[in-house]
Amino acid sequence: MAGSVFSRIIAGELPASKVFEDDRTLAILDINPVNKGHVLVIPKEDYANIYDIPEDLFAHLMLVVKRLAPAIRDAVDAEGINIIMNNEPAAGQLVADHAHIHIVPRFHGDGHEHWHGKAVYGEGEKEEVAENIRKAIG
Amino acid sequence: MAGSVFSRIIAGELPASKVFEDDRTLAILDINPVNKGHVLVIPKEDYANIYDIPEDLFAHLMLVVKRLAPAIRDAVDAEGINIIMNNEPAAGQLVADHAHIHIVPRFHGDGHEHWHGKAVYGEGEKEEVAENIRKAIG
Repeated sequence: MAGSVFSRIIAGELPASKVFEDDRTLAILDINPVNKGHVLVIPKEDYANIYDIPEDLFAHLMLVVKRLAPAIRDAVDAEGINIIMNNEPAAGQLVADHAHIHIVPRFHGDGHEHWHGKAVYGEGEKEEVAENIRKAIG
Repeated sequence: MAGSVFSRIIAGELPASKVFEDDRTLAILDINPVNKGHVLVIPKEDYANIYDIPEDLFAHLMLVVKRLAPAIRDAVDAEGINIIMNNEPAAGQLVADHAHIHIVPRFHGDGHEHWHGKAVYGEGEKEEVAENIRKAIG
């Protein structure tokens, strides 16, 4: 098994532009950036997504994200920052076997269009969905 | 000062469909959902964004996100989930004075288009940006 592309980067088998590394985390420049300075924060252990990553590792990854965000802002003079984690292919996770978090520097007028609300709840449906979520919380 | 729309929801002055609440966090259905089951996770203290929110509160919020994600998936049979935090108006933060994290259930063919890479690094620029980020990390 070759492992995910990220596991191969972590193992030093593929090159990457590293911006941060600690014992559990690697952060690299995205090779196909939305804007320059687009960074991926990756756990060294290859959990697939938010569902199977352990809580303490997820919290640690997010604190790395929080630490890197102002550094990326300052390095590229970003006017905003998106933190994005896509889980499963239906949500746009391209490296679907290895969880990763995007930090995307943004600029007014950079041309990236946000999704707009398009779903409309029917009569009573909103409270039904809320109730179903409340019941499903472990 | 009326406070942010989220502070008014937390204070009970505006209605919302709550899905989760603890002493530091409130989670509600987005009133203009990308898909049904779109949830916002909001800190009760109104920090503006990722830059000024304290580390321990940010980690706590993200662990609430991690706990809610599978519940939302199960409640609406989502095929994927996006976790999104928009920071500052240039990044699409609409309630710009009160940090919040989106949990967006996704489905194959739901019509939401992801941003595609469009920035291209010039000769040597990638390593320069990486170096500038490394230097800016506190």
